[in-house]
Amino acid sequence: MKNIKRKHLKLRNLLKKRDENLFDYFYNPPGSVPGTLRIEADAAPPEIELIDYDVDKVVRLANLTPQECKNHLETESVSWVDVSGLGNKELLQELGIVFNLHPLILEDIVNVPQRPKIETYPNQLVIITQMVMLKEQEKGFHLEQVSLVLGKEFLLSVQEEPELDCLDPVRNRIEYNKGRIRHKDADYLAYALWDAIVDGFFPVLEVYGERIADLEDELISDPTNESLGEIYQIRRELLALRRAIWPQREAMNILLRGESPLFGADAQIYLRDCYSHTIQIIDIIETYRELASGLMDVYLSAVSNKMNEIMKLLTIISTIFIPLTFIVGVYGMNFNPETSAMNMPELNWAWGYPVVWLVMILITVVLVYFFWRQGWFKNIGASKRI
Amino acid sequence: MKNIKRKHLKLRNLLKKRDENLFDYFYNPPGSVPGTLRIEADAAPPEIELIDYDVDKVVRLANLTPQECKNHLETESVSWVDVSGLGNKELLQELGIVFNLHPLILEDIVNVPQRPKIETYPNQLVIITQMVMLKEQEKGFHLEQVSLVLGKEFLLSVQEEPELDCLDPVRNRIEYNKGRIRHKDADYLAYALWDAIVDGFFPVLEVYGERIADLEDELISDPTNESLGEIYQIRRELLALRRAIWPQREAMNILLRGESPLFGADAQIYLRDCYSHTIQIIDIIETYRELASGLMDVYLSAVSNKMNEIMKLLTIISTIFIPLTFIVGVYGMNFNPETSAMNMPELNWAWGYPVVWLVMILITVVLVYFFWRQGWFKNIGASKRI
Amino acid sequence: MKNIKRKHLKLRNLLKKRDENLFDYFYNPPGSVPGTLRIEADAAPPEIELIDYDVDKVVRLANLTPQECKNHLETESVSWVDVSGLGNKELLQELGIVFNLHPLILEDIVNVPQRPKIETYPNQLVIITQMVMLKEQEKGFHLEQVSLVLGKEFLLSVQEEPELDCLDPVRNRIEYNKGRIRHKDADYLAYALWDAIVDGFFPVLEVYGERIADLEDELISDPTNESLGEIYQIRRELLALRRAIWPQREAMNILLRGESPLFGADAQIYLRDCYSHTIQIIDIIETYRELASGLMDVYLSAVSNKMNEIMKLLTIISTIFIPLTFIVGVYGMNFNPETSAMNMPELNWAWGYPVVWLVMILITVVLVYFFWRQGWFKNIGASKRI
Amino acid sequence: MKNIKRKHLKLRNLLKKRDENLFDYFYNPPGSVPGTLRIEADAAPPEIELIDYDVDKVVRLANLTPQECKNHLETESVSWVDVSGLGNKELLQELGIVFNLHPLILEDIVNVPQRPKIETYPNQLVIITQMVMLKEQEKGFHLEQVSLVLGKEFLLSVQEEPELDCLDPVRNRIEYNKGRIRHKDADYLAYALWDAIVDGFFPVLEVYGERIADLEDELISDPTNESLGEIYQIRRELLALRRAIWPQREAMNILLRGESPLFGADAQIYLRDCYSHTIQIIDIIETYRELASGLMDVYLSAVSNKMNEIMKLLTIISTIFIPLTFIVGVYGMNFNPETSAMNMPELNWAWGYPVVWLVMILITVVLVYFFWRQGWFKNIGASKRI
Amino acid sequence: MKNIKRKHLKLRNLLKKRDENLFDYFYNPPGSVPGTLRIEADAAPPEIELIDYDVDKVVRLANLTPQECKNHLETESVSWVDVSGLGNKELLQELGIVFNLHPLILEDIVNVPQRPKIETYPNQLVIITQMVMLKEQEKGFHLEQVSLVLGKEFLLSVQEEPELDCLDPVRNRIEYNKGRIRHKDADYLAYALWDAIVDGFFPVLEVYGERIADLEDELISDPTNESLGEIYQIRRELLALRRAIWPQREAMNILLRGESPLFGADAQIYLRDCYSHTIQIIDIIETYRELASGLMDVYLSAVSNKMNEIMKLLTIISTIFIPLTFIVGVYGMNFNPETSAMNMPELNWAWGYPVVWLVMILITVVLVYFFWRQGWFKNIGASKRI
Repeated sequence: MKNIKRKHLKLRNLLKKRDENLFDYFYNPPGSVPGTLRIEADAAPPEIELIDYDVDKVVRLANLTPQECKNHLETESVSWVDVSGLGNKELLQELGIVFNLHPLILEDIVNVPQRPKIETYPNQLVIITQMVMLKEQEKGFHLEQVSLVLGKEFLLSVQEEPELDCLDPVRNRIEYNKGRIRHKDADYLAYALWDAIVDGFFPVLEVYGERIADLEDELISDPTNESLGEIYQIRRELLALRRAIWPQREAMNILLRGESPLFGADAQIYLRDCYSHTIQIIDIIETYRELASGLMDVYLSAVSNKMNEIMKLLTIISTIFIPLTFIVGVYGMNFNPETSAMNMPELNWAWGYPVVWLVMILITVVLVYFFWRQGWFKNIGASKRI
Repeated sequence: MKNIKRKHLKLRNLLKKRDENLFDYFYNPPGSVPGTLRIEADAAPPEIELIDYDVDKVVRLANLTPQECKNHLETESVSWVDVSGLGNKELLQELGIVFNLHPLILEDIVNVPQRPKIETYPNQLVIITQMVMLKEQEKGFHLEQVSLVLGKEFLLSVQEEPELDCLDPVRNRIEYNKGRIRHKDADYLAYALWDAIVDGFFPVLEVYGERIADLEDELISDPTNESLGEIYQIRRELLALRRAIWPQREAMNILLRGESPLFGADAQIYLRDCYSHTIQIIDIIETYRELASGLMDVYLSAVSNKMNEIMKLLTIISTIFIPLTFIVGVYGMNFNPETSAMNMPELNWAWGYPVVWLVMILITVVLVYFFWRQGWFKNIGASKRI
Repeated sequence: MKNIKRKHLKLRNLLKKRDENLFDYFYNPPGSVPGTLRIEADAAPPEIELIDYDVDKVVRLANLTPQECKNHLETESVSWVDVSGLGNKELLQELGIVFNLHPLILEDIVNVPQRPKIETYPNQLVIITQMVMLKEQEKGFHLEQVSLVLGKEFLLSVQEEPELDCLDPVRNRIEYNKGRIRHKDADYLAYALWDAIVDGFFPVLEVYGERIADLEDELISDPTNESLGEIYQIRRELLALRRAIWPQREAMNILLRGESPLFGADAQIYLRDCYSHTIQIIDIIETYRELASGLMDVYLSAVSNKMNEIMKLLTIISTIFIPLTFIVGVYGMNFNPETSAMNMPELNWAWGYPVVWLVMILITVVLVYFFWRQGWFKNIGASKRI
Repeated sequence: MKNIKRKHLKLRNLLKKRDENLFDYFYNPPGSVPGTLRIEADAAPPEIELIDYDVDKVVRLANLTPQECKNHLETESVSWVDVSGLGNKELLQELGIVFNLHPLILEDIVNVPQRPKIETYPNQLVIITQMVMLKEQEKGFHLEQVSLVLGKEFLLSVQEEPELDCLDPVRNRIEYNKGRIRHKDADYLAYALWDAIVDGFFPVLEVYGERIADLEDELISDPTNESLGEIYQIRRELLALRRAIWPQREAMNILLRGESPLFGADAQIYLRDCYSHTIQIIDIIETYRELASGLMDVYLSAVSNKMNEIMKLLTIISTIFIPLTFIVGVYGMNFNPETSAMNMPELNWAWGYPVVWLVMILITVVLVYFFWRQGWFKNIGASKRI
Repeated sequence: MKNIKRKHLKLRNLLKKRDENLFDYFYNPPGSVPGTLRIEADAAPPEIELIDYDVDKVVRLANLTPQECKNHLETESVSWVDVSGLGNKELLQELGIVFNLHPLILEDIVNVPQRPKIETYPNQLVIITQMVMLKEQEKGFHLEQVSLVLGKEFLLSVQEEPELDCLDPVRNRIEYNKGRIRHKDADYLAYALWDAIVDGFFPVLEVYGERIADLEDELISDPTNESLGEIYQIRRELLALRRAIWPQREAMNILLRGESPLFGADAQIYLRDCYSHTIQIIDIIETYRELASGLMDVYLSAVSNKMNEIMKLLTIISTIFIPLTFIVGVYGMNFNPETSAMNMPELNWAWGYPVVWLVMILITVVLVYFFWRQGWFKNIGASKRI
């Protein structure tokens, strides 16, 4: 019993943790002034990093203030301003002024998480994305909003948390001049970041592929109550993943139709590649979801089959022993053989007792043979499986 | 038994109350003259409030008559006429004349609830919306139609009930000149009201998120018959929510395509933000619906599992005791040992009785070991769970 | 047993009657000449009524012949020719000549029921609709085709049955000059009729809303086998309703896109209202269908739960009494205490019998406590519920 | 047992026969030269019939060669060449030359069955259709491809089998000058044939309507294992029907959009009628599919209900008799009343035996009353139903 | 038990093998430079074969280097360069230079498997396809990416594995001048290869048609636990097939809309044929998926039915013998007939024993008749079936 309770506690904690940010969404109190920013109490203070580069040079500065960024924005080189952490309202508002952001843009950036989308403004293009990262010591994943604001010569990216992101490879490509990124404009940088974010879904999906494969094995060899929980959990988490990636596909589609002049034809060719990865991710998620729901059918059948095995055992035992018990009951009756020759004369027959045994053995053999013919013994030992 | 009946009564009352206005719809008797108004007997008498404002000034007047409103409509400032309550046919018809409403508009406004929609007339834009509000002392929510009629310099809003609405924050923003609302036209006001109405769905959804999370915990630790009722109730109420928000999305979409000249480009940018909230709400509802239907699968499996546990207990008891009962039945037979040496000689053996006990204990041990190997004892104590 | 059979007969008859015309459709023998008319043997003879009206006057004539109608068609006033009954081939063909109907139009009008649709011909617009009417003394509804042929100054309506229709309110509006109908053209009349037909779905839907609410109560308090039949029946009838209304929506949509010059802009505004009723009807039907399929899940769970209750009772009884029966069996054995001190000395102990009772009572108490702890007694009395 | 095996054999044969051509499709070995013709060994030799007609005259010739057809093609009258049977490669290739068919057309015509579709070539329009015919002596239907090639003044139709088709009524209409067919062009003929083919679905659907109605009755009065097979079979065959008709709808739609100059405006009006029949057929199929899947739910519930009935019977018997058996067991114990006054004094009481009977009758009455209150006796007699 | 374990091992291995490449997908580490190539350690070294042909001549060369190919590309004849194997990064990069491939193209070709798609570049058209081949000695199939790069006068095809492909028939058609291929351009060659790849799905589907038919037979005659595994496996593999073919349909659709100038009108006519095969394949897959999910329903019902049979047997045995055992128990009681005339006088009646037997036989006959009337004996022998 204790064992079970502990298991339940474990499961419940698991669920709690999983829920942390899986189906989160943001809303201001109804009727708020549009553009109201809400800073959460435990939000990390923003750290601003700037990477300013062109073909020939690259400058990387950390811990800047919005004002310090301003000078770099006016140069012709590409300026990538990366803000991590949303814990300072004034700083964020200052940022909005420096970058000349529409109040609604700033709201979408700060009040996380928003649904991924694209918004085109006269001189700016806003891309709201969701980054996914595997948790390190437990199952499941984190979702984190990354907002990209693309201007003529700059790119502003804003993340929820300063700790971890999947953008380091892009930083390195700029710093060490790998690939074409230093030769390209800010729109290519936007593509590169988005591509890194989208490709970040693949390692997560791989984990789910493995979990489904493990479940398949488990349901065949030894399905348990926890298998059911695992199926539900997988369906749930895939739902959250789909929710994060699906709107990004729509957003890309809008860009690929060339609706923003800020996103050039060359970068579009690259984005097309990123788009096809997105399609593939959605494809895999849908496939996994169908597999998971097929597994639910298998689980239900397995539970029914197990019931059949239990019932078979009960029926075999009962069918054999109930008639025998009846027979021995008969000869336990106390009719008085002395009052009449018809009253249980068997009791006084010399061969009475052995004959009764013979009859009972015969009945047993016949019934066992019947059940064996029916194939009922085949899976008795197997009922452990569920 | 009493306990159960009381529970049922409680549940039934709950259902009754829930039903109050969840799936309501209005219809006139077939063949009615178009534009027929139907006043319900218990409808509250209309209260008319006017807020007339521009950048510099704001006037707020309560308890007006339609005629008194008329003067304000002709000024250049924005006039917001808010009517709450639908209990006076003449007054509503007078309102129709003052605002020059098409009979079909008036019908849609008065005969509530209609399906949310948008209707464009030459000088007027009609927006039918549904406002959602959590009930205060019980589960569930109210739905209430809010109709907005947007003209060149005025906005007419009509609500079913005078008591409560979620528009106070907008009134305050006008009165205390918060945000940009005093600088904008009537279309911005229409946006602001609609935004407040749409954002009113979020707190309601939050409650459902929590109810689903609670159900997950409950189904894992101690699922009951009431869990089933709760799942059905959640699915039902989400259905009603979807029915209220989905057509609003369509309506916004039409406006965003710029089909009404009354709704300017600037207000459209803001409406776009509101539209993306609507999409998010629909998204969350669909997600919750999928989670709820996954929970139904979990519940069904849990019920089957519980049956298995019960059957296991029965089978263990039967399989152990039925053979033992047979054995003691054998030595309860009354064959006469005196007529033949073959008639139950065991009865007279010195060690007969102890040997029988030994055999029975042996059988028990073997069977218990068999069941233990099968893992049948693991969950016996757990069958309480359902 | 008798009782049950009677119930089944009742149900079967119910089904038969329901089927009467629910999923009916018409087809001519494959390869027939297009335009072939088929008159059913029991069809009622057609009755022709004419209402000729303009702003100033109204003429209402019954029992005309097609030729008598002809004179009225050429006047400028609107002529509504209403034909009820399809039992006379020659008359219907004459009608076709008088109104100059394309053979395919006549075929669609006479060979009922057709799928609702709209057909535009150079000078005529054909609208095939389905009218729904509640049955008077039993559950369910009738479906009846109403065909409307709209010309420049006339409207021809053709119904299957002369008995009943839902168009009387429109006739009255013309005769007593209620609303705007006498001021409008034939296209407005077509709208008015169609609107009456569409609004006729609402009272029917209301009945289904109530039946679903009743079922919800029933499934919670006392679900029976008949609940299942009722769920199936509701799903079935909603399917038929959807089949009748869905194509009408498509047809209206075509008209609203302005594809027929016969249907003017003013009438289109009114039709838009009718269209939004149609959308609402479809919406309600889909909602009810989802509720009904949710009820099926509830029913299945309820049946499983009931099985659990039955099994619990059996398990409690068996688990308590089988061990006791074993114990009394032990002391019913006939081992001879005289041959050895080890042979059932208990039988001769002074306290033997009371001790056995004590042991048995102890076992019972322990098991009852165990089951009580498991909560198995809670719902025993409740198994009546299904 | 024999009975059962025979039943299974019957079912399996049924399945075999059903499968004959239900889900058939054709493919050439991958990588074949496009236009490769494959003649099946048992294909019937082609028979060519020609009907050449205009308003004034009609010529009907059988057993022609392709060359003999050629002369008729050049006249202005409409020439309908009907080929039945696909068993002669050379003849079919010759046909391709005479009619100037693109190799891909010929491939589609000869390598049956193809998916219904429409192909437009500069001077030719190819319509691939599926004809359905009820089997005569058993359940189920045949599917047969009919290909129509429409040219300026001719129509070529090719069928798989020479035996039967549903085109005779059209032949008669031409020969006996019924309807307008002799006044119209080849495109009208194409319409007339396609219309006959599409209308051929109705009688088949009618059979399914009846089978579903029978199943409904059966599931309510006496559902059996075979009901399940029948449901599956109906779903399967409806799937095949849908597969045959759905693509024809798409094909018609393309024609109705006026994409082929060969198919004139007048014939399009008629085709529109045929199109609406196709929609209706699809509609009915979908309705039947939904009904069939609703029946599956009913069947599953019925099986569960039956289990409940069986369990109830078992539980009633066990709950009543197990305690009684315990009681009689108690008084079968052999405690020695002589060693102590406490050892089973009941055995020597004057009223012992009658009192025991009284107690047992009392217990029985109480339990029977309890079960009666629970309503468990109501359906015992009804468990035969499944 | 051993037997079972072996079965499980077999099944698990089957699953493992099936998984090999069924739901595979490729991804680079997030943030990689676009165009990064990843060579797997066990990839086969590429073999390059060239077929250079026009109407008059054909040259076939094996084991070339990319540079050697270069000369042939500049001639006017069509050059088909076929690369099999992806195990040499430098060679593949060289290939990219020779054919002037965009880095993203090369990435799609080398980093397999990608989702099938089409990419249009100024002078090149890239088609990514999936080839399917049946495994030779076991169930299931291989999926292998084939990439086609179409230029003005050349076609580059790249396959994963050098061993097997389904393109030999095309090679033969070129070499032995079968069909029109030598008369056509490189776009026709691209069509021919794609057609061969698409037609390769048919033999695989045929296997699934047979497996489903076998399952139908099996589920009717003798459904087992393995049937369930087989259903799941079929659904899984059909899912993988759909995933491979569905995007190819989209890709063809883009080509058929004429979006690439490299793909001429003539080749488009042929591609249309290939497209309709693709549609048919998707159609068949969907049909099979529906059949497979119908089979799941049948399986679940079969399991429930089997449970019913088991329960019936148990109930028959219990219902007959439990009352009899009670009766014999009664006369095993030891009430002392000597203390009172009411104490079990039956024991001393002359006909006591035979009368008891008579009563018991009567009870048995009545119960057997009752069960027979209920039809419970019909299927007892049939429970072996599952």
